[in-house]
Amino acid sequence: MYGIVIDRTSDETLYRQLYRGLTDGIKRGRPAGTAKLPSSRDMAAHFGISRTVVLSVYDQLLAEGYTVTRSGSGTYVVPGLVASASRARPRARTDSAGHAPGKTNGADRAAPVSTCFAPLEEGVIDFRSGLPDLRRFPRSAWQKSITTVLKLHGRELLSYGPPEGVAEVREAISEYLLRQRGIDASPERIVMTAGTTQAIGLVTRLLLARGRGTAVTEDPVTRDIPRIIAQHGGSVIGVTVDEDGLCTERLPDLRRAAFVYVTPSHQFPMGSVLTMSRRVDLVARAIDADTFIVEDDYDSEFRYHGPPLSPLFGLNPDRVLYIGTFSKTLAPGLRMAFLILPPRLMDRARELKWLTDLHNPVIEQLTLAHFLSSGAYYRHLRAMRNVYREKRAFLLACLAGALKRPYRVLGTQTGIHIILAVDGLSIGADWLERMRAERLALYPVDRHRVTRRDLGNALILGYGHLELDEIEHGVGLLAAGLEVA
Amino acid sequence: MYGIVIDRTSDETLYRQLYRGLTDGIKRGRPAGTAKLPSSRDMAAHFGISRTVVLSVYDQLLAEGYTVTRSGSGTYVVPGLVASASRARPRARTDSAGHAPGKTNGADRAAPVSTCFAPLEEGVIDFRSGLPDLRRFPRSAWQKSITTVLKLHGRELLSYGPPEGVAEVREAISEYLLRQRGIDASPERIVMTAGTTQAIGLVTRLLLARGRGTAVTEDPVTRDIPRIIAQHGGSVIGVTVDEDGLCTERLPDLRRAAFVYVTPSHQFPMGSVLTMSRRVDLVARAIDADTFIVEDDYDSEFRYHGPPLSPLFGLNPDRVLYIGTFSKTLAPGLRMAFLILPPRLMDRARELKWLTDLHNPVIEQLTLAHFLSSGAYYRHLRAMRNVYREKRAFLLACLAGALKRPYRVLGTQTGIHIILAVDGLSIGADWLERMRAERLALYPVDRHRVTRRDLGNALILGYGHLELDEIEHGVGLLAAGLEVA
Repeated sequence: MYGIVIDRTSDETLYRQLYRGLTDGIKRGRPAGTAKLPSSRDMAAHFGISRTVVLSVYDQLLAEGYTVTRSGSGTYVVPGLVASASRARPRARTDSAGHAPGKTNGADRAAPVSTCFAPLEEGVIDFRSGLPDLRRFPRSAWQKSITTVLKLHGRELLSYGPPEGVAEVREAISEYLLRQRGIDASPERIVMTAGTTQAIGLVTRLLLARGRGTAVTEDPVTRDIPRIIAQHGGSVIGVTVDEDGLCTERLPDLRRAAFVYVTPSHQFPMGSVLTMSRRVDLVARAIDADTFIVEDDYDSEFRYHGPPLSPLFGLNPDRVLYIGTFSKTLAPGLRMAFLILPPRLMDRARELKWLTDLHNPVIEQLTLAHFLSSGAYYRHLRAMRNVYREKRAFLLACLAGALKRPYRVLGTQTGIHIILAVDGLSIGADWLERMRAERLALYPVDRHRVTRRDLGNALILGYGHLELDEIEHGVGLLAAGLEVA
Repeated sequence: MYGIVIDRTSDETLYRQLYRGLTDGIKRGRPAGTAKLPSSRDMAAHFGISRTVVLSVYDQLLAEGYTVTRSGSGTYVVPGLVASASRARPRARTDSAGHAPGKTNGADRAAPVSTCFAPLEEGVIDFRSGLPDLRRFPRSAWQKSITTVLKLHGRELLSYGPPEGVAEVREAISEYLLRQRGIDASPERIVMTAGTTQAIGLVTRLLLARGRGTAVTEDPVTRDIPRIIAQHGGSVIGVTVDEDGLCTERLPDLRRAAFVYVTPSHQFPMGSVLTMSRRVDLVARAIDADTFIVEDDYDSEFRYHGPPLSPLFGLNPDRVLYIGTFSKTLAPGLRMAFLILPPRLMDRARELKWLTDLHNPVIEQLTLAHFLSSGAYYRHLRAMRNVYREKRAFLLACLAGALKRPYRVLGTQTGIHIILAVDGLSIGADWLERMRAERLALYPVDRHRVTRRDLGNALILGYGHLELDEIEHGVGLLAAGLEVA
């Protein structure tokens, strides 16, 4: 069936084998067109595997946009997914109506440096996004890793190292990506960076070129991103995001774009997942225009149904530059992230990193390597996934119980923030200040817009760092505040 | 005498009080013109302090170029040191003969990324520069600092922090600079950086402007420096260095210069100390042209006669941007340095650092803060100064005993490398390769030239990381090699 071979002697799980077999088949066009998938029962019987496994794989395919379900009729492969490398595709580009791609230059925006580093204030419920639960950081395991590397390593622990990072940490990350994310990236393609911020700066410097002075981002997008790009002389075009992620059909001509920046697993801030058909469209457009895609996969380790979504990277590892980070899974204060690059960009990337800050601190690289290879990271991820799942469910329940105005929540499947869009709300600075006086810190989506003007009713609710009682109290304050907004 | 007040109840040492009093007086022009200093005996008697203290201060003034001795006649203040803020100064600029200021663009140089991170090879004597003695890194004290901060600090240890660095480390550095270096820099002027490399990149981005697209450096200069500047669009003019440091009279018109980069305490690589009269000249020229000076004080903690030289920064803290680093005093793998900036540049510097990598890793910042404030850093510096003093003396003795060809050594007073210039030697790639085959790694000064062509007979001998037996063996190999060069 579908040319899939299930090998029970393989190290690979049955889940992974079936998932890989099906997605490979879909990408090669095997279940052509709108082919209906066999029922999970038939599939399970055919391979002699548990139906639970098949159902999990089907759920995953659905979540990643490979398939759609038609009620009462079954599961179908989405049309047009065939062959991500296809060049035959209609070239409709003019963004006819609605949100025209807006061109802006981040340098023009006089916003002050982000204040997300202000310490959390005692007694204030602060719904800021991007903060993991640092009370549950595995301090003793981390310290054990530090102690071990200080004991085991010679002078190389303290000396200059290679710009891309020490081999140990790149190998451990490569192994982790394969095991947990299904990403096949050899250590030779990995460059350690001082957080995602530095990774984006490096990518910008790597890809900006004469005649390629523009970067395309989602709109809205983390507000610092256009400013980082502008720092290095790039201009930014924002393209609208909807509930299926970046509206790829609204992309401008990419032939003058250095790259397209996307957060396909969990759009920041809106939370949408880029559908498979749009992924395919995006990759095809990048190929057509001979440009690159930068995939910022900042928090998809925390997904609450099934394993993490497959990254865009897998569709075309030669066009997609992947950014992973330990800021959300471990701690932002570590300043540890990484880039996966096409091999042809590695030399230049190593040179840029060297001339930027030589390399990441070595003790922390080796500590992270030990932390990964000792298994402590896997245990921590599992534990935190459960912690966040509980917090998320609790937050949703609190909102349902407390809010009197009609609202929608978005982006709840992944990560440590959700979007709350309240019907008829127009978030103004006055109201936010009044809420602040009530000891409730709120963050509007609108801070992250490039040029859009339709985001005024939505808040980002970061919940990773909040305890359940704080969530409950915070939602109570919010509900009361919405009564007078 | 000289308006100096010695206060025995002060926390400041008598040495420091006398030094400060004399240099303040000299800068204000008190001992006018060529005034002879009182004999050390008279000075000691006048203030009722030990003659040893006075002699140490006199030595320091001499070393820093405030004074000259005339044999049999005494010690005189160097003419023309008065008032660094003076604007009245002849504007002779055309570099009439000899080394014309050479304009080069670092981006044109196709040199590969520095290989100073290659691990030291077993059995090879490697005279590379810039490596401290990492065998003597105080691992247990460092680990104790890590353990302490992991225990004492709450979530702020793991979270986002301010771009300039946490207050604790900036306060500890400020305190250290005042106590040990006589530098008065408040924590509010300090920005933590990921090594000197990042500091230079930040400074370049901070100061380059329309009509200010050039940076002036010493020639020779650490080879990465012009490349870092070029990365950010700057072009580089190298100005010759002699045994008194940068030849300030050869400086080009600085009105189009973003900054002048200097290593006044121990020129890299040549080792010369910038004389006081040139310091004054440099500052005056910077004021005239309304430009800045960037002082890279990379290794002056290790000075083998008297305390470290006073930095240029003290002459004009509003024009001089000071870079200090822990790469040589502790370990380069830590990637920890700092910038001291004029207050008016701080906001922009914080913004640039934020958009570069947010901030340095927080655990390492707090570890360094603890390491400094616990006194461990001071103990380590004292111990290492003695270690390096011994290695240096041993290296000089080995050279004197083994080399048959006439040679000169330069820059031996400070730091962890010296320059060996061998009469009539012309260092070629062939000879270096032959030496490498003999398991001796040598580094020519010529690698660091901007445009000069007269450096072909000089080697940089880094000795900080070598043990005495390695130094002896290495010098033996070198002496044999010179016989056939």
